[in-house]
Amino acid sequence: MNLKNCMVAQSGGPTVAINASLAGVIRGVYASAVYDTVYGSLNGITGILNNKLTNLTALMDEHPEYLDRLATTPAMYLGSCRYKLPDYMDDDSPYVFIFNQFETYHIEAFFYIGGNDSMDTVLKLSEYARKIGSNVRIIGIPKTIDNDLCETDHTPGFGSAAKYIASSLLEIAHDTFIYAVKSVTIVEIMGRDAGWLTAAAALARNEYNSAPHLIYLPEVPFDADDFLLDVKRLLFERNNVIIAVSEGIRDASGAYISASEGTVDNFGHSQLSGAGKTLEFLIKEKLGVKVRSVEINVLQRCAAHLASRTDLEESMALGKKAVALSEEGVTASMVTINRVSDAPYQVEYGYAQIAHIANEAKSVPAEWIAPSGNDVTQPLIDYLAPLIQGESKVAYENGLPVYMDVSHLSVHQ
Amino acid sequence: MNLKNCMVAQSGGPTVAINASLAGVIRGVYASAVYDTVYGSLNGITGILNNKLTNLTALMDEHPEYLDRLATTPAMYLGSCRYKLPDYMDDDSPYVFIFNQFETYHIEAFFYIGGNDSMDTVLKLSEYARKIGSNVRIIGIPKTIDNDLCETDHTPGFGSAAKYIASSLLEIAHDTFIYAVKSVTIVEIMGRDAGWLTAAAALARNEYNSAPHLIYLPEVPFDADDFLLDVKRLLFERNNVIIAVSEGIRDASGAYISASEGTVDNFGHSQLSGAGKTLEFLIKEKLGVKVRSVEINVLQRCAAHLASRTDLEESMALGKKAVALSEEGVTASMVTINRVSDAPYQVEYGYAQIAHIANEAKSVPAEWIAPSGNDVTQPLIDYLAPLIQGESKVAYENGLPVYMDVSHLSVHQ
Repeated sequence: MNLKNCMVAQSGGPTVAINASLAGVIRGVYASAVYDTVYGSLNGITGILNNKLTNLTALMDEHPEYLDRLATTPAMYLGSCRYKLPDYMDDDSPYVFIFNQFETYHIEAFFYIGGNDSMDTVLKLSEYARKIGSNVRIIGIPKTIDNDLCETDHTPGFGSAAKYIASSLLEIAHDTFIYAVKSVTIVEIMGRDAGWLTAAAALARNEYNSAPHLIYLPEVPFDADDFLLDVKRLLFERNNVIIAVSEGIRDASGAYISASEGTVDNFGHSQLSGAGKTLEFLIKEKLGVKVRSVEINVLQRCAAHLASRTDLEESMALGKKAVALSEEGVTASMVTINRVSDAPYQVEYGYAQIAHIANEAKSVPAEWIAPSGNDVTQPLIDYLAPLIQGESKVAYENGLPVYMDVSHLSVHQ
Repeated sequence: MNLKNCMVAQSGGPTVAINASLAGVIRGVYASAVYDTVYGSLNGITGILNNKLTNLTALMDEHPEYLDRLATTPAMYLGSCRYKLPDYMDDDSPYVFIFNQFETYHIEAFFYIGGNDSMDTVLKLSEYARKIGSNVRIIGIPKTIDNDLCETDHTPGFGSAAKYIASSLLEIAHDTFIYAVKSVTIVEIMGRDAGWLTAAAALARNEYNSAPHLIYLPEVPFDADDFLLDVKRLLFERNNVIIAVSEGIRDASGAYISASEGTVDNFGHSQLSGAGKTLEFLIKEKLGVKVRSVEINVLQRCAAHLASRTDLEESMALGKKAVALSEEGVTASMVTINRVSDAPYQVEYGYAQIAHIANEAKSVPAEWIAPSGNDVTQPLIDYLAPLIQGESKVAYENGLPVYMDVSHLSVHQ
């Protein structure tokens, strides 16, 4: 009997769609005439090194209902890692071990679901495989809420985070509009280097809500004087000014707009605070108006109950696509989403050479940012709008979303 | 023609259920043989004083589909205010004006949906009505995410906030469990004086998730040394420690556990930070472990897409009940929820004299807090569990929840 198996792992920061891609890989293997079993490596590539592997085919055989549940569960069912492979020229020992494991488990293809750092791992494994003449196909499956991977129209996980941000902005607007007094609300959104997530706040605008009234992305140098003038002008026009700001905004010198030194709490500890809090205090001091800041925190990457159906479906499709491509012999690649049209929204799935992707990043293009530097343009909204369509079919029990049991992550920790 | 109308207003801080009570009042008036029209006063009681009134019956006649949409829209459709009526012995001019307005609009009953401060207004209006021999019935309809009103088993808006908190805690747990390294996550939850909301984090526990591992309520004096020992002990047992903490925790002297003085950001402004951030820095300094804090921000009171169906249904029922009681001549009261049993969960609606409610507050009873002071007991969980059951039927369009158009609040600002 000539067993042919494959292996999958997840890495980097959480999204709510990364398990949909895992479910897609499993579905792809079920549909495959080539592969017998799909193994999961726990905590990314380190699971192979530590021999923490789990038989996903067996799990799903036993609990077929888990496949749907997996697809709507946030973060990584297989756990994550931040391990960076050394250059194999410097130290090939982990590579030797990994490819030995592949042989032991009859692994014909390895799928790595992750962001930029994970694609670096895909690149390194691909190069090593070529060097030793291994036939194991190495394919990356993208995910990142930051949407900053190249060669793909957008990244799995981004659409759901965008939906969470736009919904939250709309709900915060309702929360803000109730008082007939002048006020400023600053909403800080993730994205240290790319403004895609912050831009998604613009999707909250509708026939009665013009918020966010100002949008600041990390792509544009932030000028505190211009900012104060913008806010002042808007406070003449309306009572409630709502501002979306990226955590990563920087001034013209490249310094982050955030608290830095000399901050001490009542235990005597120095503290750091983010862009939102910093702008809150700037407005309080300079404009003397009622102001608050709200940090759209880690929930923007893990609130799976509000995932975008479009995002989950595409993420799953990419998992399946990766399996199919590996059967065709594709390797050293990342599967990609190619947009065919905005309206009607249509995509195709393809792949790109991993060498063109790893260690590159995609920012919001200048033409999608308003010349004023404090808003986005319609083409960016047209790009974003399809990605948040549709709702997750997550089940509820006792009033709470039903997610996959992840106690194996504790066991293996 | 002898017109009999009624009037309704909303006040205090937002919840996601306060519009369900408003929809309940409107439904009650539709079903009433007594009342013709229900007027809404914009921005609480100040709408009567500023003559900012809206005909809700006419609105719903024209747009019957708005009734369902209203019931699932967060914050106040009619806007809010923080206006406090003077004692009528000191200054009866606003009272004279208000009761003149009631006469002008043929108002037989006035419903005020709000929290503790709003019940103070209900009390004052009731007393004034008695003094001048007015027949206008004055009835309060409770709402507050804080659940700190007396005489009612729980308050509308609380169950939905509890559901949001428990779901978020569960999603944050998934987000946390993925890394095989020691870490502490602190989740700061609203509730300055009462720990009900923070206690609701315990509902996130299930067969695979034991988080939150520690729960700190404002009812228990907070001891930093005990806290550090608790965290240290748990870090021996497990990798990821997740802590739910009320924004209002205080030390034995009554001082808030939050940053106070000497904190300066890079614009030179002094800053304040909350309990979560303060504990984050305490752990970082004393235990040197990876730590982060997450503030469950205003979304816990405005994320209507995750409202509790039970909460919305009860809130609507209370609105209807208030109308029915006013027809029976009840006044100077607040409608209440009386729990008949936990399992099966069953409630009845009643009312209580407003004099017993206004300016009183309900804390978590000592027997519902673990003797260790860092957890809650099963009876509290049994009390909380029914309140988060069921999901909101909010509609989605273009990927976002569909809420009521609130542009009238800007117009009237």
